[in-house]
Amino acid sequence: MKISEIGEFGLIESIKKDCVTSLQGVIKGIGDDCAVFHSSSGRVLLLTTDMLVEDIHFLRNTITPYRLGRKAVAVNLSDIAAMGGTPLIALISLAISAQTEVEEIQELYRGMREICGLYGVDIIGGDTVASPNNMIINVSLIGDANQQEVLYRSGARPGDRIYLTGTVGDSSAGLSILKHEISPQDSLRGHFIKAHNEPEPLIKTGKVVAGSRLASAMIDLSDGLLSDLAHICEESRVGALLFRDKIPLSKELKSLAAHAGFDPLDFALSGGEDYVLLVTVPPAKTRDFERVCKKESVYPLFQVGEIQEAKGIRIRHEDGSVEELAHKGFDHFSHPW
Amino acid sequence: MKISEIGEFGLIESIKKDCVTSLQGVIKGIGDDCAVFHSSSGRVLLLTTDMLVEDIHFLRNTITPYRLGRKAVAVNLSDIAAMGGTPLIALISLAISAQTEVEEIQELYRGMREICGLYGVDIIGGDTVASPNNMIINVSLIGDANQQEVLYRSGARPGDRIYLTGTVGDSSAGLSILKHEISPQDSLRGHFIKAHNEPEPLIKTGKVVAGSRLASAMIDLSDGLLSDLAHICEESRVGALLFRDKIPLSKELKSLAAHAGFDPLDFALSGGEDYVLLVTVPPAKTRDFERVCKKESVYPLFQVGEIQEAKGIRIRHEDGSVEELAHKGFDHFSHPW
Repeated sequence: MKISEIGEFGLIESIKKDCVTSLQGVIKGIGDDCAVFHSSSGRVLLLTTDMLVEDIHFLRNTITPYRLGRKAVAVNLSDIAAMGGTPLIALISLAISAQTEVEEIQELYRGMREICGLYGVDIIGGDTVASPNNMIINVSLIGDANQQEVLYRSGARPGDRIYLTGTVGDSSAGLSILKHEISPQDSLRGHFIKAHNEPEPLIKTGKVVAGSRLASAMIDLSDGLLSDLAHICEESRVGALLFRDKIPLSKELKSLAAHAGFDPLDFALSGGEDYVLLVTVPPAKTRDFERVCKKESVYPLFQVGEIQEAKGIRIRHEDGSVEELAHKGFDHFSHPW
Repeated sequence: MKISEIGEFGLIESIKKDCVTSLQGVIKGIGDDCAVFHSSSGRVLLLTTDMLVEDIHFLRNTITPYRLGRKAVAVNLSDIAAMGGTPLIALISLAISAQTEVEEIQELYRGMREICGLYGVDIIGGDTVASPNNMIINVSLIGDANQQEVLYRSGARPGDRIYLTGTVGDSSAGLSILKHEISPQDSLRGHFIKAHNEPEPLIKTGKVVAGSRLASAMIDLSDGLLSDLAHICEESRVGALLFRDKIPLSKELKSLAAHAGFDPLDFALSGGEDYVLLVTVPPAKTRDFERVCKKESVYPLFQVGEIQEAKGIRIRHEDGSVEELAHKGFDHFSHPW
């Protein structure tokens, strides 16, 4: 059945059920001019929004609508995680062709509702409009946090140690596989596609890090390690040194790199969409920080470098030599669209 | 200069200045994973979002980027007005081709910042991404209100009088002129284009209506009088009767209709984007309501019909005959895109 057959309001009716499940603070969900929401006293609100454009951020033939729905929400949840917050409510805007199958949109919303349910998030509003070409998904997410615990990009200081909460590079290798730029071993294909299509937002990890009150800055890796570390450096007015042998790579990425003949560091440094957290911690607090992470089962945790006073990002090779790195993260406008 | 020449971060730098001007409650604006915001205790939050798609909601050759920016925010402000709220902060997502002129986007943001400034709204976050085709603008707006004063669509009861806070039909006549479907008198052209391109959100009116605590329901007319009244009827489980001779038409619309040979009621009933408020008031309270509106300079104000128990929307003609009206408002998916 095409959306043009059931119309805008029929479509909204078919997707709005089960959007609000937690009821915490939600006074009015979908179905009025605005949603109405009550925030907890003494907490600050966190707001984030991401727009996903078909053929730029996703290809409809490489991800199921259910997985796309989950991912669209997951990348926003990751932003809340990166501030140490608790996600609460979501607003979803969708532009789609009227010739789209209703079932595709229902699957998309099933994915969005499912991941929202897993993290206690209510979908309380949105907009559903026609698109003459590509599908566009915009998710706005609202969370809250204890004001004293929010971690900004601007808090890193020279000497702080840089941590990553997971391996990097698998997601962008997955994208290259989906785009037929790399041909993987059959046994590894699923691993990389999953890394790209099914990111898990590290909400619990973000809360443990923020709640410890030991870290100085945090960001989630969406544009790529170099690019996101550059955001931290810019906002904190510092530079950074990465230790090449400490950058965490999955055994699958090492195996794929050997098989296909590329340097896995290229994906690890410049690939995007890892959605692990990068955390900086003052040197006097690293021991307590690692202890808290261990106690709260934040695992894995890798120390990959340190913040320095000199601007720019450098990498120290295994032989001790230090190389200045050019900024090679993702820029949405570096392509000639 | 093309956006591809300055890149994503160059573009963000060039538009983020002056986005936060009120500083009320804003702890962190653009430049981190999330914006951070403090809401006032004892107030509820209002959330609304609208997605505007080029060639569906706007034509880039019929509105300047500055006016488009103002309008994109105005239609969201109108949703806050329709609940009786105060707008506070905005998140703006934009998808655009890298071949777009930077100046066009700066003009768009100038319009958005200017209308935000007029209504005390801070732009504290957003997302800026590439689009392979059309321009897409998504605005999410957050406001707040006194919980006891929020007016929903669901509060209308049989016998309540229906009010409009302005004339209807001019905006959709303007759209027809822009689409060359109607050829107006030269002297009237500007009036209708302005009605379509420069809607003014009725924030103050919405607050007076809600603050009076005399109204039972409110909605802003975005889809068209019939369609939006149908939303009120559906959510309130009632029907409505409109008085044909009371539907407020501008003298310009009457003149255009006589000139071009159409029934102005068609635009007034089924045209969209009027952005006036439709308010229902219990009969025992209409006198006080009109008195408060007069005192607070809410003008004009038209009583156009009444809520009835029988479902459906009817119109009473000048000769006293009553006609059942089919629902002819705007459905985004009624076109074969």
